[in-house]
Amino acid sequence: MGLNKKPYKGCRDFFPKDMRVRQYLNQIMQKSAESYGFEPYDGPLLEEVELYKAKSGEELINDQIYSFHDRGERFVAIRPEMTPTLARMIAASHRQTPKPIRWYSIPNLMRYENPQKGRLREHWQFNVDIFGAPDNTGEKELLIMLIHFLENLGADSSMFSIQINDRQIVDSFFQETLEVTNEEAYKLYKILDRSKKISKEKLDAQINELQLEANKVKALRDYLLIKDLDALQEFSTKYNLKKQTQNLFAIYNTLKNLNLEKYLIYDPTIVRGLDYYTGIVFEVFDKHPDNRRAIAGGGAYKDLLKIFNEEPLPGIGFGLGDVTLKDFLEVHKLLPDFSSPQFDLMICPLSDDVLEHSFKTALILRKAGLKIDHPLSKIKMNKVFKQAQAKGHKFIAVIGEDEAANNEIQLKNLETREAKNFKQDNITEIKKFIEG
Amino acid sequence: MGLNKKPYKGCRDFFPKDMRVRQYLNQIMQKSAESYGFEPYDGPLLEEVELYKAKSGEELINDQIYSFHDRGERFVAIRPEMTPTLARMIAASHRQTPKPIRWYSIPNLMRYENPQKGRLREHWQFNVDIFGAPDNTGEKELLIMLIHFLENLGADSSMFSIQINDRQIVDSFFQETLEVTNEEAYKLYKILDRSKKISKEKLDAQINELQLEANKVKALRDYLLIKDLDALQEFSTKYNLKKQTQNLFAIYNTLKNLNLEKYLIYDPTIVRGLDYYTGIVFEVFDKHPDNRRAIAGGGAYKDLLKIFNEEPLPGIGFGLGDVTLKDFLEVHKLLPDFSSPQFDLMICPLSDDVLEHSFKTALILRKAGLKIDHPLSKIKMNKVFKQAQAKGHKFIAVIGEDEAANNEIQLKNLETREAKNFKQDNITEIKKFIEG
Repeated sequence: MGLNKKPYKGCRDFFPKDMRVRQYLNQIMQKSAESYGFEPYDGPLLEEVELYKAKSGEELINDQIYSFHDRGERFVAIRPEMTPTLARMIAASHRQTPKPIRWYSIPNLMRYENPQKGRLREHWQFNVDIFGAPDNTGEKELLIMLIHFLENLGADSSMFSIQINDRQIVDSFFQETLEVTNEEAYKLYKILDRSKKISKEKLDAQINELQLEANKVKALRDYLLIKDLDALQEFSTKYNLKKQTQNLFAIYNTLKNLNLEKYLIYDPTIVRGLDYYTGIVFEVFDKHPDNRRAIAGGGAYKDLLKIFNEEPLPGIGFGLGDVTLKDFLEVHKLLPDFSSPQFDLMICPLSDDVLEHSFKTALILRKAGLKIDHPLSKIKMNKVFKQAQAKGHKFIAVIGEDEAANNEIQLKNLETREAKNFKQDNITEIKKFIEG
Repeated sequence: MGLNKKPYKGCRDFFPKDMRVRQYLNQIMQKSAESYGFEPYDGPLLEEVELYKAKSGEELINDQIYSFHDRGERFVAIRPEMTPTLARMIAASHRQTPKPIRWYSIPNLMRYENPQKGRLREHWQFNVDIFGAPDNTGEKELLIMLIHFLENLGADSSMFSIQINDRQIVDSFFQETLEVTNEEAYKLYKILDRSKKISKEKLDAQINELQLEANKVKALRDYLLIKDLDALQEFSTKYNLKKQTQNLFAIYNTLKNLNLEKYLIYDPTIVRGLDYYTGIVFEVFDKHPDNRRAIAGGGAYKDLLKIFNEEPLPGIGFGLGDVTLKDFLEVHKLLPDFSSPQFDLMICPLSDDVLEHSFKTALILRKAGLKIDHPLSKIKMNKVFKQAQAKGHKFIAVIGEDEAANNEIQLKNLETREAKNFKQDNITEIKKFIEG
């Protein structure tokens, strides 16, 4: 019995048709980020476990990371997320770097997941962050860029929304209005996080477990009923939280000026768990009924560098995974057809005798920047069209003995059947024929 | 004390200036490979250790891989090389794929190395392979592509050479001329592999240890003295190995027709260790005296799919690492300057009042495909030029109150000091001004 031909559990083999999709997504990510002045970075595949523990606490560490001791007894992990590496690199370099610092990365990450739709063990994640932008300009720039990126992929406001909240509102509401302890707040964050996934009865039961006073339960229910910014305005007036909503309204206004407010939905249940966020938090949701899941998430944070004993440097960022992005694009039919590779033309040597010559012709055309399919063996004249069309070619360059003797190719347009001989190094005319 | 800001041993942090270099190299790899019809693929970060053991034997497994048991007690490793993954994917798909199959990949790989110049624990490797090409056309196509790729980076025959040999010659010479046992052949491969790195005395001592008969020692010395193809011709006549040299001469002739033979050097010591090669083997060497090391290596193989119980499918491939490639390009001064990011223009809002407006202008210009640096805060008029020039900009778009009121920008060429106002959405004229 031979070895297993399947990839490791929860990981993917990217065959060419899959890889062309990944390259397309990477290219749009890169182009979108760079048009906003985000600069690329990357870090090591392994980091010391200490780093993840300091940033995310024990939960993630124990359940979800691939960790092991290296031969030098360092306790290391395959990166499960990029933010700790980012924080380490920013801590090491921010003093010498002009602000705002705009960085992006598309690393492969691994988490010990139970593989399911939208969740794999290995995925690629588009990470985009801004550090040191004044006031909330970083928040605005990042949200505009995120929307623009998804628009560059063909998406519009009928397909996705950004559910947004601000931890300043939630945190003040918990501490000042509900006056809960840290432990209770911790439970409340978890309740909010899951509130859309559980039944109303279950939600009520979980709220009751907290044994809050009646007026506070009422306040919490009021909070959960906020559906839009008008309702938030009302709520914040009623519970004396107007100051804490200013940031969110300012961001909303800028996006309104750009006609992008249609993407924003205020959502009181978005808190991004126990994470390190201190300002706005958001998740991008697919609106398609078959695929209602978050395809990206992020927020603003102040204290990411604290674990390195660095002064606070305000930042905001998001992460967007390739698995959920691909599901999103597929369900909305936004993915171009990548089933076949694209060539400028296929060289067709008609006999073994002209094969040497076709290597030469291929090299000349490739040096001119053309993408050339060279079959590396003769093709019989009566099979040329069939083979070329099966491979999706539009143009072929036939080389028979006459062509070889004259250093020529016979270019044919497979659609119009137009045919014409060219000197093999007459690149200008060859390109004209191909480009029409 | 805060956490360590350094990357894990033997790994690199890619800050933007480093990452732009990596992107440039990847782009040339991609472009070069695709102009030859190589299609992209990738596999998982982890594979079962069994796979590496089957392909490479115990040595690599014990000393050089990052292996561990996952939580499901699978014994896995971070990929130290791409070929076993490639073999697995080809075994799974070759029956449905038209030949020749041309694939390339640029994965990150990890080996447990002692970090030193040219050798790190994590590196990116350009892997290029052809399967199922008739005769030696795959060998020819691969070598032509490899040379073309290095030429695309600006290299020429004064900077690198390809030291080439054929395992058919070496294997026949060992078995039929020297008549050594498999165990002795194993030792001989190791001696050849290291022969250029040790003194003549040491080499002699190692040969003596084999206790070959005098005429065989003479033959081995004759072999080691082969310096070029003429000498190989003589040697093969003398030792009745002419048939085994035919493949190499055929490949050499095709490259000669393309004026590429200047890159080839016959080298009897190239055997590529105990690897799985069965035909030509080669290494690309930097000719610079400060950096005389192999920057790529590869060869032809027949039996890669055997471990999957598949019929033999002839293949040829090479691997080229990013660390040694970068050393090569640096020593020959072939790397473009990537110290700063490139922008089309920088937006300069002159007051806080026009900041909202500058978000709008930035979005319009970015939607038109321009790369825009938006500082996210006002810049005082007397600091505009200094700041823009410090960041390497050539053009700025000044937005004062008049411009904002009229939906205009004032474009300035920082070199010529030419300045002109444009409507912010007059993309055609704005592009003309920038492109000159």
